Amino acid sequence: MWLRTKCDMEFDIAVPTPFILMLRLRSGAQQWVASEKYRLQPNVPVSEFTDTYGNLCQRLIAPPGRFAIYTSADVRTADHVDQAPGAPFVEVEYLPDAVLSYLLPSRYCESERFGQMAMSIVADRQLGYDQVKAIETWVRNNIRYEPDTSDEPVSAMEINARGAGVCRDLSHLGIALCRSLSIPARLVVGYLYGLQPMDLHAWFEAYVGGRWYTFDATQTELNGGYVVIGYGRDAADVAIYNQFGPAAYPTYQNIQVQRIEESDV
Amino acid sequence: MWLRTKCDMEFDIAVPTPFILMLRLRSGAQQWVASEKYRLQPNVPVSEFTDTYGNLCQRLIAPPGRFAIYTSADVRTADHVDQAPGAPFVEVEYLPDAVLSYLLPSRYCESERFGQMAMSIVADRQLGYDQVKAIETWVRNNIRYEPDTSDEPVSAMEINARGAGVCRDLSHLGIALCRSLSIPARLVVGYLYGLQPMDLHAWFEAYVGGRWYTFDATQTELNGGYVVIGYGRDAADVAIYNQFGPAAYPTYQNIQVQRIEESDV
Amino acid sequence: MWLRTKCDMEFDIAVPTPFILMLRLRSGAQQWVASEKYRLQPNVPVSEFTDTYGNLCQRLIAPPGRFAIYTSADVRTADHVDQAPGAPFVEVEYLPDAVLSYLLPSRYCESERFGQMAMSIVADRQLGYDQVKAIETWVRNNIRYEPDTSDEPVSAMEINARGAGVCRDLSHLGIALCRSLSIPARLVVGYLYGLQPMDLHAWFEAYVGGRWYTFDATQTELNGGYVVIGYGRDAADVAIYNQFGPAAYPTYQNIQVQRIEESDV
Amino acid sequence: MWLRTKCDMEFDIAVPTPFILMLRLRSGAQQWVASEKYRLQPNVPVSEFTDTYGNLCQRLIAPPGRFAIYTSADVRTADHVDQAPGAPFVEVEYLPDAVLSYLLPSRYCESERFGQMAMSIVADRQLGYDQVKAIETWVRNNIRYEPDTSDEPVSAMEINARGAGVCRDLSHLGIALCRSLSIPARLVVGYLYGLQPMDLHAWFEAYVGGRWYTFDATQTELNGGYVVIGYGRDAADVAIYNQFGPAAYPTYQNIQVQRIEESDV
Repeated sequence: MWLRTKCDMEFDIAVPTPFILMLRLRSGAQQWVASEKYRLQPNVPVSEFTDTYGNLCQRLIAPPGRFAIYTSADVRTADHVDQAPGAPFVEVEYLPDAVLSYLLPSRYCESERFGQMAMSIVADRQLGYDQVKAIETWVRNNIRYEPDTSDEPVSAMEINARGAGVCRDLSHLGIALCRSLSIPARLVVGYLYGLQPMDLHAWFEAYVGGRWYTFDATQTELNGGYVVIGYGRDAADVAIYNQFGPAAYPTYQNIQVQRIEESDV
Repeated sequence: MWLRTKCDMEFDIAVPTPFILMLRLRSGAQQWVASEKYRLQPNVPVSEFTDTYGNLCQRLIAPPGRFAIYTSADVRTADHVDQAPGAPFVEVEYLPDAVLSYLLPSRYCESERFGQMAMSIVADRQLGYDQVKAIETWVRNNIRYEPDTSDEPVSAMEINARGAGVCRDLSHLGIALCRSLSIPARLVVGYLYGLQPMDLHAWFEAYVGGRWYTFDATQTELNGGYVVIGYGRDAADVAIYNQFGPAAYPTYQNIQVQRIEESDV
Repeated sequence: MWLRTKCDMEFDIAVPTPFILMLRLRSGAQQWVASEKYRLQPNVPVSEFTDTYGNLCQRLIAPPGRFAIYTSADVRTADHVDQAPGAPFVEVEYLPDAVLSYLLPSRYCESERFGQMAMSIVADRQLGYDQVKAIETWVRNNIRYEPDTSDEPVSAMEINARGAGVCRDLSHLGIALCRSLSIPARLVVGYLYGLQPMDLHAWFEAYVGGRWYTFDATQTELNGGYVVIGYGRDAADVAIYNQFGPAAYPTYQNIQVQRIEESDV
Repeated sequence: MWLRTKCDMEFDIAVPTPFILMLRLRSGAQQWVASEKYRLQPNVPVSEFTDTYGNLCQRLIAPPGRFAIYTSADVRTADHVDQAPGAPFVEVEYLPDAVLSYLLPSRYCESERFGQMAMSIVADRQLGYDQVKAIETWVRNNIRYEPDTSDEPVSAMEINARGAGVCRDLSHLGIALCRSLSIPARLVVGYLYGLQPMDLHAWFEAYVGGRWYTFDATQTELNGGYVVIGYGRDAADVAIYNQFGPAAYPTYQNIQVQRIEESDV
């Protein structure tokens, strides 16, 4: 399907503030960016670089006053999310080198502390995809999804104790549980068509059966319409924006995802 | 200045043909891509990757029949090209690791065979930027610039013997001469506002005084308006398109670069 | 000075266990590995790769039974550790792209929670090197260094609450404090000549004045004799060994660092 | 089998000369470096980096006078070289991204000019491994292998015209022929046990059937005993040493490869 995504943000900046943005969609095997707009007001100089995960990042200094970011894109994405019940666990020795770092604990995914809990959740499941599905289901059933409730990321341990969280938090817990079973898992940040309420979204991917598969503990069904902005080990790596110095929160944010026809692109 | 670039190409494909395209502009320190369109007809699946030079590359299989590529972009680029007479030569031991490969001979830049010629061209010049300027001037004065005359890249040695060539050829000779003096040099492919006749363009950059500087032996003056698509060691690394299997040449190609106002973006 | 390092480890393995080792010293600007031995018993197949931090990693499967790793190296390292009181803070916008990831929070360095504490520790200090020195001193004076007390890494927040830890723990706290001030910091794992009691060691580096400098909260003076095995964001990235599956702890470990003459190499 | 390799070189240096050496063996899937020595006289500072091909490179400045490099290693390498008659051609669209650059023409492998010749050599062969074997056989039968005859690399076109060359030259021709058929191919530099006369050696690898396979047009049979130092697109990328400034040739060079027992390591 073709989607038109939009993410606009405005900040009220007090002192010149370095930002690292991650708002240019990445094209890859799963999606094709046919059109993209990216405007800044005021129109400050920007430099771009690719981080170690392959995400496109934009560096700039926001000047004092109102600082606005307007982005939109027309993207072709899969109508259906690939699912593969029964896809096997990949023994660590056969994982590609580039996937290994997704086995390690990270800021918000303290995977080394979830071994026992994960074992009990996946008990009796076939190794691989079915284990991850059991984890996704467990998180969906046990951690209440409360959109719009949190600004700061919290970790898998914190969210497990709290029993409720935003999409990012549920994903962190899913990731920590997967990694504790030696299944590589990573956080994905992007858009989801039909998300209620509409917002930026986060989900997770796990590497089983020789490739990455999509999981989302916030949705009861995995429908198509996922658009990837970036991915990494957890929210520390994949922030839509990082700022340095006194924090400036968005004074305005507008996220939209609408379906379009190919002829509209 | 703001420029709107356009590159449309059509092919008549006989058998399914793998292509690697390099037509997504790279944003970086020197330019900002505020808007970009990239359409294919028919709309085949594409995957993208970043090559070792940081260029964004698109992989696809063109199906038999008419295959069309339509790209355009609104880009902010420098009004003036930085020039730095007197900028010093950087001793090889102080070059960044990532720059070293631009010292080596490459397919179309047989730099190891140009040592004596380069020495005579730069005689008496101060080491660094002024040497490269002398090389650019020598190429401009000694190799006739003949747009629209060549389809296949030829090497620096061939072009030096022939005495005439397209922008890419003159750049290859400039690069080979620089490298023979231990000055890193690379080929840049992109657009130039005001180029006569309008076409895709190629020029070269040399690393002196701690950064890359732009040189162009095809132009008598270095005006602003350069838009970078990609760079690499020579034309073998930076092809707008690579195809594999029976060659299919474009049946139609349309390149445009026009000046726009920021409000048009 | 020339040092001969040795790290031998033995495990008692119950089931075939994938390991990722990081025991080949990295050569770089600061040290030169003139001789190195790396033996495994039994002599299982190993493949090596370079991780995103540039560390050399060895992958293998340890078979059931006794599994031994013997490594040693003759290394030339600096007699004196570079120190640079007054070296300035590098504004985030001028940091090299590759350094930016060392600003982010990571598994054991929850830097986003240390802003206030860091501000009070560095109050009145000149921005840059002197801030890091104040942090190192504060950690040395406030967190008791207790070698041989911990096997599992704990995070900066945990160690700050506990008030005591091993070298790795003190480094994690130092790193979290630096990053909260927008100073890039990373964990280094290696050897230190003269360490009491002798063991593997960990310290940290901070990026100020345009380069990485060494800091060590466990030592009252920064003497020479540091030998680097690897570095990364924290202990999650720089483990001498990672194993997957049922944990097997070393049944024997022998670390030695002795001074040698160049003629002994 | 276990091999002890040795490469010693001495130079008589006139002016301070930057060198980039590539003499540290790379460990990987195919070989394990259990012991390595690397000494320089005089003992100048060296920094190491990993190039884009994964080769470990050493940078230094050789001072005026006698400059000596002594390296040796104990390596476990395969007893038999994997061969796979019938292994299929990998369609370009299924090649890993990282392999694609080995399809492009390079300094000494002008593959875009060998299409017709390659087609006639491989006529009737099954696509893939058998084509490469036909190319290797053709080069062996048509280009006379003359060790010790050449110092400067020459290109595939030059060697094809000349009809004779060293190991590197024959490999360049094999590589150019493979690439012209859209088969990725790369140059490997290293040692070969039993080579007559003993010297550094070069051979080539081609990517068919989903992995790299070894080919060597200088040997009538593919026996075990290959030890890899580095690989790249051709000799421009994989030089044992690159020097910058006035050329200094080795005044002494001693290469040895002997078989050892595992107990000797």
